[in-house]
Amino acid sequence: MAYPSKVLLREVGPREGFQTLDTIVSTTDKLELIRLLVEAGAPEIEVASFVRPDRVPQMADAEDVIAGLPESGAAYKGLYLNPKGFERAEQTGRLSNEAWLYTSASKTFLKSNYNTTPQDFYDSIPEWIEIFQRYNKPLYGLMISTVFGCNEEGAIAPEIVLEILDETLKRAGDLGESFQEISLADTVGHGNPEKVKRMIAEIRTKYPLVRISLHLHDTRGTGMANVHVGLLEGVDCFEASVGGVGGCPFAKGAAGNVVTEDVAYLCAELGIDTGVNLQKYAQAAAYAEEITGLTLPGKFFRTAFSCG
Amino acid sequence: MAYPSKVLLREVGPREGFQTLDTIVSTTDKLELIRLLVEAGAPEIEVASFVRPDRVPQMADAEDVIAGLPESGAAYKGLYLNPKGFERAEQTGRLSNEAWLYTSASKTFLKSNYNTTPQDFYDSIPEWIEIFQRYNKPLYGLMISTVFGCNEEGAIAPEIVLEILDETLKRAGDLGESFQEISLADTVGHGNPEKVKRMIAEIRTKYPLVRISLHLHDTRGTGMANVHVGLLEGVDCFEASVGGVGGCPFAKGAAGNVVTEDVAYLCAELGIDTGVNLQKYAQAAAYAEEITGLTLPGKFFRTAFSCG
Repeated sequence: MAYPSKVLLREVGPREGFQTLDTIVSTTDKLELIRLLVEAGAPEIEVASFVRPDRVPQMADAEDVIAGLPESGAAYKGLYLNPKGFERAEQTGRLSNEAWLYTSASKTFLKSNYNTTPQDFYDSIPEWIEIFQRYNKPLYGLMISTVFGCNEEGAIAPEIVLEILDETLKRAGDLGESFQEISLADTVGHGNPEKVKRMIAEIRTKYPLVRISLHLHDTRGTGMANVHVGLLEGVDCFEASVGGVGGCPFAKGAAGNVVTEDVAYLCAELGIDTGVNLQKYAQAAAYAEEITGLTLPGKFFRTAFSCG
Repeated sequence: MAYPSKVLLREVGPREGFQTLDTIVSTTDKLELIRLLVEAGAPEIEVASFVRPDRVPQMADAEDVIAGLPESGAAYKGLYLNPKGFERAEQTGRLSNEAWLYTSASKTFLKSNYNTTPQDFYDSIPEWIEIFQRYNKPLYGLMISTVFGCNEEGAIAPEIVLEILDETLKRAGDLGESFQEISLADTVGHGNPEKVKRMIAEIRTKYPLVRISLHLHDTRGTGMANVHVGLLEGVDCFEASVGGVGGCPFAKGAAGNVVTEDVAYLCAELGIDTGVNLQKYAQAAAYAEEITGLTLPGKFFRTAFSCG
């Protein structure tokens, strides 16, 4: 494969980044960060998740954030993990959400984070499709978490991921639906360049037409090498977080997403168009650092300012 | 090329890492870190640099550190940039330094950091070789800084680097000497995976037998992608810093070296033997964080402890 000519960067900082912090960022600060991201040319921004406020207080202001979103050319998204969340997102009238199904390659992680089993996930597909159809949304994508491994089960074989794809496509197909994108999520950072390459190859062999996107975490330092291998394999869509906010990067435990502006810089160096303004993205990252009070792991954004 | 089966990791944290910090780490703390690195199986450790104490107070205790080094199987090294520094290092009697020449691909950087010019560097080679011969050291290697670019001159073309190699080999050859290793140093982080790949290819085409080692900084987030491309091209020697200490990583400006234990983890994932114990290296990184009081950029070492 060759590098793609264009790459779509989906900004998840305001959602996944903030959701995983101990601190709660104010609605005003979230909106200012989103404004800076829009100014930097972020094409897609995940601005909130529609989850239970008692479980995830960082996202209790989801509707307020969305009500305050600036008019822009950016596509705003909101994460949902159950039908009620999907409906809350739709009812805001401001989001351009596609219809995604979410599952996990690790059964342990599926139980602990989604409170479900593989069988129950498959059995829920008709219910999901019914609600998507009620909002005139054709099924769009499938995101699979812990696709390269999890801390409990270790490495996940590509065959497991292919089985999930097969069964989900079959269940969707029974209802006249399909999907056009697979998001491979390295939720707890078990990916390495060879795993990424192999997984993409195996999926492409069986499903040559599906778009593959990567949602990578930099838990063990392999994040950017994994991004580069994805690019080499022609992957043209990455989820990433401004400044690397999220995932308690400097607490003990899992680190956050790869850093959006670092990925954008790598793309620029490789002649790949992302449409973002690196200097302005760096300003957004500096702002994310300011409002979280954390030392963020992003590298590029520090070089965008003069050295003291 | 294919991955090498073994990789030599040269630990530069106690030298380059500490040298670039604002704070001064005590001799006792340095020695404890070195002890932990030895326990973790670090095969080579750069423990000090022999520079003027009035210019680099962080290294004023070079001789004291060396006097306190534990007996071990590790090869201890000391950096020198002038003949006096080389002699100070030799006089300790505890170092296994090879005979290296140091220059820079960027003339601006050569002037600002080495206070010399390309011509003066070439003209100094006989003097270097004379002093190396006095200590019975055949010329061993050439390290070239800012090999992929610098902040003033931008990108550096491989032709510039080849010219330096050609001329240095010619001057050394006139005196019956040669060298067996080239260290390519991305001093201020202008490398990207394609530049790394091209540079290695061009050097190998002209000098197929020379060993190429990489000294990479993660200034703009491409460090680990560059390491991976180096591995893909068969590079089997990397300089790196425990925990990523150094280079004022979280001040504005240049970030430090790539992180030794993150590189070691990547190697382990790819089936490449580095001989280091990852868990123990993580403990050394945690100790480096403790004694510097900084939030270090290393990723892997945080995962080596349970999540709170």
